[in-house]
Amino acid sequence: MKTNGKNKYLAFTGGVGGAKLCVGLSKILSAFEIAFVVNTGDDFTHLDFPICPDLDSLMYALSAENNEELGWGRKGETWNFLRSFAELGGENWFQLGDRDLAIHVMRKQLLREGLTLAEVTSELYQRFGISHAVLPMTNEQVSTKIQSQGELKSFQKYFVKEKCEPKIEKIVYHGSKHAKPVPAVLEKLRDPDLSGVVICPSNPFLSIDPILSLETIKSALLSLDVPVVAVSPIIYGSAVKGPTDKIMGELGFTQSALGVAEHYDNLITHFVLDNEDVNLCSEIEKLGLSVLVCNTLMKTLDDKTELADNVIKFIKNSFI
Amino acid sequence: MKTNGKNKYLAFTGGVGGAKLCVGLSKILSAFEIAFVVNTGDDFTHLDFPICPDLDSLMYALSAENNEELGWGRKGETWNFLRSFAELGGENWFQLGDRDLAIHVMRKQLLREGLTLAEVTSELYQRFGISHAVLPMTNEQVSTKIQSQGELKSFQKYFVKEKCEPKIEKIVYHGSKHAKPVPAVLEKLRDPDLSGVVICPSNPFLSIDPILSLETIKSALLSLDVPVVAVSPIIYGSAVKGPTDKIMGELGFTQSALGVAEHYDNLITHFVLDNEDVNLCSEIEKLGLSVLVCNTLMKTLDDKTELADNVIKFIKNSFI
Repeated sequence: MKTNGKNKYLAFTGGVGGAKLCVGLSKILSAFEIAFVVNTGDDFTHLDFPICPDLDSLMYALSAENNEELGWGRKGETWNFLRSFAELGGENWFQLGDRDLAIHVMRKQLLREGLTLAEVTSELYQRFGISHAVLPMTNEQVSTKIQSQGELKSFQKYFVKEKCEPKIEKIVYHGSKHAKPVPAVLEKLRDPDLSGVVICPSNPFLSIDPILSLETIKSALLSLDVPVVAVSPIIYGSAVKGPTDKIMGELGFTQSALGVAEHYDNLITHFVLDNEDVNLCSEIEKLGLSVLVCNTLMKTLDDKTELADNVIKFIKNSFI
Repeated sequence: MKTNGKNKYLAFTGGVGGAKLCVGLSKILSAFEIAFVVNTGDDFTHLDFPICPDLDSLMYALSAENNEELGWGRKGETWNFLRSFAELGGENWFQLGDRDLAIHVMRKQLLREGLTLAEVTSELYQRFGISHAVLPMTNEQVSTKIQSQGELKSFQKYFVKEKCEPKIEKIVYHGSKHAKPVPAVLEKLRDPDLSGVVICPSNPFLSIDPILSLETIKSALLSLDVPVVAVSPIIYGSAVKGPTDKIMGELGFTQSALGVAEHYDNLITHFVLDNEDVNLCSEIEKLGLSVLVCNTLMKTLDDKTELADNVIKFIKNSFI
């Protein structure tokens, strides 16, 4: 294949859903070739532990330490701390596993030693044997908040406690106006060797938009002259995981891959659509996007690697 | 039995050894009749958790939540947090079990809410279904420190990390000069209904002396006109548990129950000695102490209750 010789990629991702594609990308691209930028809008402090759900989901996925039975959390998890804590009347709405807890305690210790979140993340990923660079979007606090019935709720309250039931009126990325991105994110976006950016099939509103709410990331993305590819998290009108479709309806978007394409429209150049949604292809192309139709449902490691391969080829082909 | 009609007791105790007698006392005396004063000189902050080893040992013992196989810690304990934490390069010299961790997280939460250590202790004990009053000696920081080869070590470093191996030159109760006792301790010591004080068979230097290092507790004890009974933690020259005998040798005391009696001499009026040490009886009586010789080795619940019963009768008999 003829390419422009550039060979670096950047992927934007949220939690478990996006992490599947990241695993595929990590299998076909070296640590030199791809880095990951992760949403921290869901991060919060719980029982005085700094919890970073998306950073941890990706860490577990990339190190094959993810819990496949549960679909979230850490492999071989036990819950003896939480059970004992609940017996004492402690809060147990947020599932803190015994093995998962080790990460939060270590993160806290490293943060207290004065490391930034990016440095802590790098330390933890290295200790998990992961060589790919994974960057939190910011070292500062940006908190996704959900407005529902006039009340502004924390993301975790909405997502875990209320199981995404309240109707969303608006989503706010609190703190994003003044928060600076992790410097390496901008460096990688401005790297002349950057071949393209992949927006993983994560929830656009809860996982990707918090990253894009950092103005310098958004403007760096807008000024790129390389492909920016979004992979739809919606297949045949439904989210593979989580409340994306429901939220799209509530916020007035078309509840389909087309709605996702419309949402990202001015930021992306390429769009990847599932075979099931082939009928949406021409409408999405009318938005001015190049469209790839393939399997996007990632059940096995082969599915992940194959989709990653298709996405990267899609980018490379655009330079032919 | 004829008594003076007084019916309240106070027991001073440290960790696992003393807790055995406390269990016995709690079986024969109601929450109205006995309260416990606990050493906090071993307390320390570890991984940002406030750890109170003696308060927790007693809580587990009084609620039958203690781990009998290990001889310390909590029943049905698992170690998945600590194992995962160590895999990440985290410190694991201090054994933090998954179930035990729930206590430290809850204690931290309650302290952060502004409760004193005494209030937190009362909360935790209530949640463990314990009705007897258990009082930490102070709400402030008093830290037992070990001087060895000219260096002042923290208690936990000496006790856990170095397994009590360094030769002790001196023991310092750092902070005791300015720390105030928990008010209820003094109130109970000054209660006109107080019948007697029991010094449990804990390490005199590491568990009881930190309590006595609080000047107002010591002077209240000295001005009592009721029996103060110490139960020897040394049987036939050896500590039932821990390094008491070794430390006695290092500090120049006779390594026997006699040495314990000599150490407490001016503070106590009564001494309880094991059957094995009957030959020391007359020498201890020469110190001016009333001596009871009985079984003091507590292997079963019956042993604990029987010793408690003997100790309380010993106090009551002194009023006949």
